[in-house]
Amino acid sequence: MSLDPSRLAPMADAIRALSMDAVQAANSGHPGMPMGMADVATVLWSKFLKFDPSAPDWADRDRFVLSAGHGSMLIYSLLHLSGYERPTMDDIRNFRQLGSPCAGHPENFLLDGVECTTGPLGQGLAMAVGMAMAERHLNAVFGDELVDHRTWVIAGDGCLMEGINHEAIGLAGHHGLGRLNVLFDSNAITIDGSTDLSTCEDIPARYRATGWHVVECDGHDFAEIEQALAAARDETTKPSLVVCKTVIGKGAPNKQGTAATHGAPLGDDEIAAAREELGWNHPPFEIPQDIRDDWRATGEAGKSAHGEWKQRLSGHAMANEFERRMAGELPDMGEIEKAFAAWLDDDQKVATRKASQMALEVINPLVPETIGGSADLTGSNNTKAGEIGPFTADDYSGRYLYWGIREFGMSAAMNGMALHGGVIPYGGTFLIFSDYCRNAIRLSALQQTRVIYVMTHDSIGLGEDGPTHQPIEQVMSLRLIPNLNVFRPADVIETAECWQLALQDKYTPSVLCLSRQGLPQVRHDGDMLSAKGAYRLKAADADRKVILIATGSEVALALDTAKALEEKGVGADVISMPSMELFEQQDEAYKADLLPDAAPSEILRVSIEAGATLGWERYTMANGLQIGLDRFGASAPAGDLFEKFGFTVDAIVPQIMNKLKA
Amino acid sequence: MSLDPSRLAPMADAIRALSMDAVQAANSGHPGMPMGMADVATVLWSKFLKFDPSAPDWADRDRFVLSAGHGSMLIYSLLHLSGYERPTMDDIRNFRQLGSPCAGHPENFLLDGVECTTGPLGQGLAMAVGMAMAERHLNAVFGDELVDHRTWVIAGDGCLMEGINHEAIGLAGHHGLGRLNVLFDSNAITIDGSTDLSTCEDIPARYRATGWHVVECDGHDFAEIEQALAAARDETTKPSLVVCKTVIGKGAPNKQGTAATHGAPLGDDEIAAAREELGWNHPPFEIPQDIRDDWRATGEAGKSAHGEWKQRLSGHAMANEFERRMAGELPDMGEIEKAFAAWLDDDQKVATRKASQMALEVINPLVPETIGGSADLTGSNNTKAGEIGPFTADDYSGRYLYWGIREFGMSAAMNGMALHGGVIPYGGTFLIFSDYCRNAIRLSALQQTRVIYVMTHDSIGLGEDGPTHQPIEQVMSLRLIPNLNVFRPADVIETAECWQLALQDKYTPSVLCLSRQGLPQVRHDGDMLSAKGAYRLKAADADRKVILIATGSEVALALDTAKALEEKGVGADVISMPSMELFEQQDEAYKADLLPDAAPSEILRVSIEAGATLGWERYTMANGLQIGLDRFGASAPAGDLFEKFGFTVDAIVPQIMNKLKA
Repeated sequence: MSLDPSRLAPMADAIRALSMDAVQAANSGHPGMPMGMADVATVLWSKFLKFDPSAPDWADRDRFVLSAGHGSMLIYSLLHLSGYERPTMDDIRNFRQLGSPCAGHPENFLLDGVECTTGPLGQGLAMAVGMAMAERHLNAVFGDELVDHRTWVIAGDGCLMEGINHEAIGLAGHHGLGRLNVLFDSNAITIDGSTDLSTCEDIPARYRATGWHVVECDGHDFAEIEQALAAARDETTKPSLVVCKTVIGKGAPNKQGTAATHGAPLGDDEIAAAREELGWNHPPFEIPQDIRDDWRATGEAGKSAHGEWKQRLSGHAMANEFERRMAGELPDMGEIEKAFAAWLDDDQKVATRKASQMALEVINPLVPETIGGSADLTGSNNTKAGEIGPFTADDYSGRYLYWGIREFGMSAAMNGMALHGGVIPYGGTFLIFSDYCRNAIRLSALQQTRVIYVMTHDSIGLGEDGPTHQPIEQVMSLRLIPNLNVFRPADVIETAECWQLALQDKYTPSVLCLSRQGLPQVRHDGDMLSAKGAYRLKAADADRKVILIATGSEVALALDTAKALEEKGVGADVISMPSMELFEQQDEAYKADLLPDAAPSEILRVSIEAGATLGWERYTMANGLQIGLDRFGASAPAGDLFEKFGFTVDAIVPQIMNKLKA
Repeated sequence: MSLDPSRLAPMADAIRALSMDAVQAANSGHPGMPMGMADVATVLWSKFLKFDPSAPDWADRDRFVLSAGHGSMLIYSLLHLSGYERPTMDDIRNFRQLGSPCAGHPENFLLDGVECTTGPLGQGLAMAVGMAMAERHLNAVFGDELVDHRTWVIAGDGCLMEGINHEAIGLAGHHGLGRLNVLFDSNAITIDGSTDLSTCEDIPARYRATGWHVVECDGHDFAEIEQALAAARDETTKPSLVVCKTVIGKGAPNKQGTAATHGAPLGDDEIAAAREELGWNHPPFEIPQDIRDDWRATGEAGKSAHGEWKQRLSGHAMANEFERRMAGELPDMGEIEKAFAAWLDDDQKVATRKASQMALEVINPLVPETIGGSADLTGSNNTKAGEIGPFTADDYSGRYLYWGIREFGMSAAMNGMALHGGVIPYGGTFLIFSDYCRNAIRLSALQQTRVIYVMTHDSIGLGEDGPTHQPIEQVMSLRLIPNLNVFRPADVIETAECWQLALQDKYTPSVLCLSRQGLPQVRHDGDMLSAKGAYRLKAADADRKVILIATGSEVALALDTAKALEEKGVGADVISMPSMELFEQQDEAYKADLLPDAAPSEILRVSIEAGATLGWERYTMANGLQIGLDRFGASAPAGDLFEKFGFTVDAIVPQIMNKLKA
């Protein structure tokens, strides 16, 4: 498309008008960024971005990520103007109102064309890195005919100041992601005022030092913008940063260039002045037909590219496999299930991190879309399995990622990979460092992505590394995140089951909490019991007086405790609860069978988990007994710690007996 | 001190021997880093670091931070050899065993001379930035006579790869912290192998781009090390990065230079070979007297500097104030209490974030050690109050910090400030972004620092910004962290009380969860009721059938609900619970008075909090009623959201009535 500047300017002003009017109508929002980046976005959309508004899920479309998600009116304007079915003008009129897909920040689950949820700064860019990695990987697997697209990002000063920026661009530079282009909205303004208040870094120099190609342009000069974007596009061995010098709120004559335009409506007077300044004489939410036509034309090139692509796909030898993978459908799991079922007959004492590796040895060869890695703890997380080779700039077909010491960057990139589609990412770190990537885990959940977190060293059982490395509150705190399955398997069997459940859930991310220390095999029968979230592993021999509920490494301890209780004539059930979330989804009858409604004096419920107790009262009742750890750990061998903190039969049984007497 | 290289080498080898022998004895640990950095550390300790082993808490000592905390045997060796009372050789022999202060990672609460707890990578360096900022601030306030010291850091590749590194060095560069010197252990090895696996960045160029002075040296050439450290010391307007090219595990002839030395014992054979290589013919844990003497001499310069400093302090006009502040004692709080007490007579409907600002207007002028700021949300967090001016490179006396969009960096730096002493840091961001800085909050708690987190926009009550910005699980998940006081005040009075409690707790950090939206004043009497964590705000008029327990913005809703219940003849208490942690510390009688032991059929307990419900069963009992939100929020005006998600009297009362009937 080769529109001349005289036609681009009104197109950009249409974005400005929609943005300022929608924010004003909502009486909240961020007009400054869309108005500042309107010119750049117009050039990108009309001359570079490969997209087909009639097919937002076309696999080979370019991905566009608005990392500076607060400027959401920019993407809503772009999608509407270029002819996506949604948002409609009514949707835009209802910006930020209940029920409108035009939410305060862009949400991938509300609108096609929104590739990912953004707002938490820096993560959009990091997700884009993952998308660009997925693209190169699928290109290596399926070839140029099927996969050959770019990832474009708009990011602001906030995105570039966040720590995750360092991790993300380090990955992109290291992997030579030449098809990743970041358009930096360099307006020198943050919420608090001038960027001089808080930073004096030379951003281009930093990006160059990290292996990036950097170009600059006046973000309000269409020719310069086009030249810069072309230079970014043409550099194919390095990711590109396009520094777009812009004026925040451009077009609002009295407020532009100031923080006042960032996050508040401009006000009626300033909007009137902006209309004057821009020569935009149209009422709110009305776009003249000629401008609308020019916008509609931006999708034409993409539509025809899409047509050609469909030709190439039909009859392609790998078409079925490609479509299966892009649809997120698993291959037949029969062989995997068979392999896991055979383990029931063994009696393997292994750490669940090792069991996870054993599961992956089975899974990875049979599920070619897995792409795994670790944040520099490969040998500890046991994530490398099944003969997968490294993903490198020289060979993108590799399925193993050395993420480096970048937990947050890894997690956000995995979100991007999953959102791109065609791959199922899993990544490892120590469970304690879920704290470092917590908001990316939350975005996995919010965005409904199938990302699998392999988090090992899941309790004081890690031993000598001490309190900085010992999770206490992590397992329970992850359970608090909506739409996240937290698994804490007890042995090799549950670990395999949990891996299978994680793979099978297309819209819910999973965290596997795995032990460093060896755990005895507690299961020798039963088919996929973990799917219920919790199940009765052992029924009381004597008259049931106690129900022990345990997870992970404490299930074996619960079994030993039950044995000791039975020897005293106290009947005790043992319930293994690998996932609270899945248990919550069971029907009332199932729940009541496991946890019958009875006063503690009749049946005492006891939870055993080497972590925070707050939350366990849901299952033990407040006057049950919660065996756990509500303080920081200590540095010592694991056995000494379990002893010190009371995770032994000898320490637990008397507490139960006392409680029964009370 | 001017020891020649022939005497430095054996001193460094003493570190190597202690490190490899202690790790071997523990059968776990990290010998590679201490052996690699032994030469650099020896030069630093003997020629640059200002310290007095007999007075580890001397206010004007240099701060030494081992950011690469896994190399803990380095600092244990240094402290022991240079003559600190602890660790003793027995402590070192018991490295990583229960009861030894020589924990797997260095813990500030176990050993004097360990300035901060390290291990979670990158945070040591970021804490050091805070220490250097505190030093400059106190220097500006108290002058060179009392405050004039440096901060030295040893950091590894991991610290430099973590995202927080970017935030931390951006702050240091921007503030021109010339007295901060980071010795980078550049050994090109991470756990997974060569750094080439995961990064190709030009680290010196990145640091220069961020405003740093960079020098390089061969980390095994004493003359070069000394030259480089001198250059770092002499550059006073920029922080310095000293790139020390080292060989990891230096001295272990068959394993040095490889990841094998990083995190595992060398093994008996390799240790024997290393003894040979180093010419170290002494048994484990024995140090020849001449080497010990040389090490003891490293503290002499510091001891005499300390003596001179004490001279300067005695009779100094500001001596008392300086000592008060360094001891962490608050000034008289009488005026503050009086001011807050007067608010009881008012009737102010304000957001608690605004109430927090009002509290700070009173506190800041009377407590000169507060140093506040925000991660680029000054106008939203309401953290600037009491006429405090900005802290800048030109004026370090300022008490307000524009932290930039750096939540994690801010939080870690605040830890460093608090650990340095003499200041009480508080910092703001949106509560949702506690996810970004969560592990630094955890380290505040573990390190027992008085850091105050001002976290606003604490629920769906923030409205239109939508689910990425609406905390759901954050309040409860913070409550899970040991030794952290989480406050969610209900109104202007409770906010003032919580501020006071946060200031008064010297060893426990606090998170203030504050509303964006205005809240009616619910308290008009009572003195410091928040100190109990929870209290009966309203007693049932009719026969008590219900106890409503609420926090923050839901307390007013609970009062309205109680009113509606009373109108139906159902007596209802309302308990405001600004802090679960403080309530847990009350005696059983107090707890039982508020929450008497009664079956739900007699007295129904109901929690109301606009957030995750898991955990509330501790107070409502499992068969009570938990009004909360266990899904992500949505983008809409706050009122619409409270309506949609059932936080209204009309939605709550029927649930209670049904439950009472059941």
